[in-house]
Amino acid sequence: MTKKVVLLLSGGLDSTTTLAMAQVQGFDVYAMSFNYGQRHSHELLAAVKIAKKANVKEHRIFTIDLGGFGGSALTEDAIAVPKDRNAEAMSHGIPVTYVPARNTVFLSFALAWAEVLKAYDIFIGVNALDYSGYPDCREAFIRSFEQTANLATAYGVEGSQRITIHTPLIALTKAQIIEKGLALGVDYSITTSCYDPDASGAACGHCDACSLRLKGFSDTGKTDPARYRV
Amino acid sequence: MTKKVVLLLSGGLDSTTTLAMAQVQGFDVYAMSFNYGQRHSHELLAAVKIAKKANVKEHRIFTIDLGGFGGSALTEDAIAVPKDRNAEAMSHGIPVTYVPARNTVFLSFALAWAEVLKAYDIFIGVNALDYSGYPDCREAFIRSFEQTANLATAYGVEGSQRITIHTPLIALTKAQIIEKGLALGVDYSITTSCYDPDASGAACGHCDACSLRLKGFSDTGKTDPARYRV
Repeated sequence: MTKKVVLLLSGGLDSTTTLAMAQVQGFDVYAMSFNYGQRHSHELLAAVKIAKKANVKEHRIFTIDLGGFGGSALTEDAIAVPKDRNAEAMSHGIPVTYVPARNTVFLSFALAWAEVLKAYDIFIGVNALDYSGYPDCREAFIRSFEQTANLATAYGVEGSQRITIHTPLIALTKAQIIEKGLALGVDYSITTSCYDPDASGAACGHCDACSLRLKGFSDTGKTDPARYRV
Repeated sequence: MTKKVVLLLSGGLDSTTTLAMAQVQGFDVYAMSFNYGQRHSHELLAAVKIAKKANVKEHRIFTIDLGGFGGSALTEDAIAVPKDRNAEAMSHGIPVTYVPARNTVFLSFALAWAEVLKAYDIFIGVNALDYSGYPDCREAFIRSFEQTANLATAYGVEGSQRITIHTPLIALTKAQIIEKGLALGVDYSITTSCYDPDASGAACGHCDACSLRLKGFSDTGKTDPARYRV
């Protein structure tokens, strides 16, 4: 029997690479995406394309109102997305693009679905190098959530197999992630990373996410096939 | 300055008592309820009445699709709510009324709101005695979530005050909870605990929640002012 896994799919480069890595291990992927009040829906459209192309077992989009809380440049028009910051600037403090408790909320939903599916594995494409300012991308957070997950659910009380949170990208550079994905045949042209795309979905090329992505491709000597506005 | 707290308010006896306990400590209460696909909306209507009567700072209702996962008698019509079970029967295993990962999801949302409000305290009316079969009502789960919450958010990285999850009812019997609530002037007539009320909202008197509630009132020698169908 193929093992079921729940995978958080944002439509970005990292989660798409994570999906390819889970599938090459032979897992049956149940992908989840969230309409969480983000300012643009291009990443959800990308997630739908990616899930279809990868032929996942099931793809669900959950609508949750994190935007209603405010407090992030990714959900509030009034907070500007920073542009053209260098690695030094990006490494200080928590960026305004941080969405409060986002990964905790996403992983909680993944846990609920996993428990119903009787899956024992959750995949999330967090990365501790590129997003050093996001507290919920750190290994310590993930391991703590994993422990909580096992106490929260039937996994913890029935002496059954524990649930594991997989973070295959956590210690990789963006270039290493791209190399892995390309080796697995990932089509990065349909992924979207930009925090501030235009109405057509073209990436800005200047926000932190674009800067990291472009540097990653540049480090591998490959060209980013995503569409940028000029 | 009054301290802000986020409080999970279901509209039941326990969370309403917890609300009274938080307010008597002088906290400003920001109450959250969830429309999570439960079979009936009477508890949400009760939560609205309770929040209004208690004059909370703000009350928000979040719609989240936990029902879409299935797997619980509280969200699926096809799974019957057990009736007339004694304490012995209730204490074995995880009841079918358990909603997968519910408290993890609820606490994650509470954490997101707390972070935006800059609140350092979350109140949840879980009880480990009455609901011994629910893994996410146990002290070990709550303490683990608290640790995860501090790693997940700005609380964990800015050297600021930690966030605390308060569970004032966790070790109380139902009778003790009712005594505390009555002493604080809680109006239990507007609370609803029943898993299976009729269309008018009248409680069944036979599900686990009704059985525990009725026994609690009986132990205190008081009459439950809630409306039961006859």
